[in-house]
Amino acid sequence: MSYPSALEKLIKALGKLPGIGPKTATRLAFFLLFSPKEEVSHLAKAMLEAKEKIGRCSRCGYLAEDSLCAICQDPKRDRSLLCVVQDPRDVAVLEKAGAYKGTYFVLHGALSPIEGFGPEELHIPRLLKLIEEEKIKELIVATNPNVEGDATALYLSRQARPLGVKVTRIAFGLPVGGDLEYADALTLSRALEGRREI
Amino acid sequence: MSYPSALEKLIKALGKLPGIGPKTATRLAFFLLFSPKEEVSHLAKAMLEAKEKIGRCSRCGYLAEDSLCAICQDPKRDRSLLCVVQDPRDVAVLEKAGAYKGTYFVLHGALSPIEGFGPEELHIPRLLKLIEEEKIKELIVATNPNVEGDATALYLSRQARPLGVKVTRIAFGLPVGGDLEYADALTLSRALEGRREI
Repeated sequence: MSYPSALEKLIKALGKLPGIGPKTATRLAFFLLFSPKEEVSHLAKAMLEAKEKIGRCSRCGYLAEDSLCAICQDPKRDRSLLCVVQDPRDVAVLEKAGAYKGTYFVLHGALSPIEGFGPEELHIPRLLKLIEEEKIKELIVATNPNVEGDATALYLSRQARPLGVKVTRIAFGLPVGGDLEYADALTLSRALEGRREI
Repeated sequence: MSYPSALEKLIKALGKLPGIGPKTATRLAFFLLFSPKEEVSHLAKAMLEAKEKIGRCSRCGYLAEDSLCAICQDPKRDRSLLCVVQDPRDVAVLEKAGAYKGTYFVLHGALSPIEGFGPEELHIPRLLKLIEEEKIKELIVATNPNVEGDATALYLSRQARPLGVKVTRIAFGLPVGGDLEYADALTLSRALEGRREI
């Protein structure tokens, strides 16, 4: 016996969160125990509500509280441009950058035979159907610059090109504000590969 | 707009936890979003239940689900020994060490005029009454070895000694398994001060 059982239970439940070890879980549990009741129930409610309300957009697979996400519902977005990303968080990052005015398609993963992620799991048949039905003009593949992301990009371009859509890949190279000296070899070779006339 | 409002709300609520910045809060929120529903409601329930069920022991101030905590309810504990600590977590640490068979008194703080913690806030009048009523033989002061903790220990000894109780302070010195070379000056001077004949 060290803590009351309700506290032990809370510490154990918090310890299941990613990156939260037993010490942090204990610290968080004590914080909650000594927080005002309204704040604790606010957090508990926020967790349950997010879980309950948020589903996937039926068009693009991004997070949505309705059948369509806020981006797909927005009449100002260019629906002839489709940007393919691996993760819903990527959409948020691109939206924050504010440089893109088209719509998205979220794969929820990348091709990975080891993890059992094939074209079906990534909703690629649905993506191809969407390209045909909505007469998408350009498919911008913004999967991650690693083996799985590149393989997915290659697969997508092979599948989508026959449908008459232009398939592009976002550029990889030196990050703006970066320093040549600190760039890794792969990034440097990608930057050289993608060089443009000035 | 970047995330659905229910998710933004959850990220904001998680970000209020200590040591959880916006990035970690987002990571945790996504983890919860993609966790099975039962796990999320289990965590939410654990939070609410801990908050609801756990109060303070009416005798010692430690965490308790009933009016008395498990330690004060235990007939095997020596009720003539009382160990004074600053924080409920200190009780758990001492219990884990398993070297103490008496009962506790939790101050929930230490004397600190700046933070507005006087004897009243630390329940010291109640402690003195308990010493008299239960005829406590020894009061072991285990407040932290810092300015506030030492001041509290001094204050307690002055208040409690006239009641005929023996007041002791836990020993400070080198941690077992430690190395003289790495000990700080204060710990070393305390270790010298507390030297014993062998």
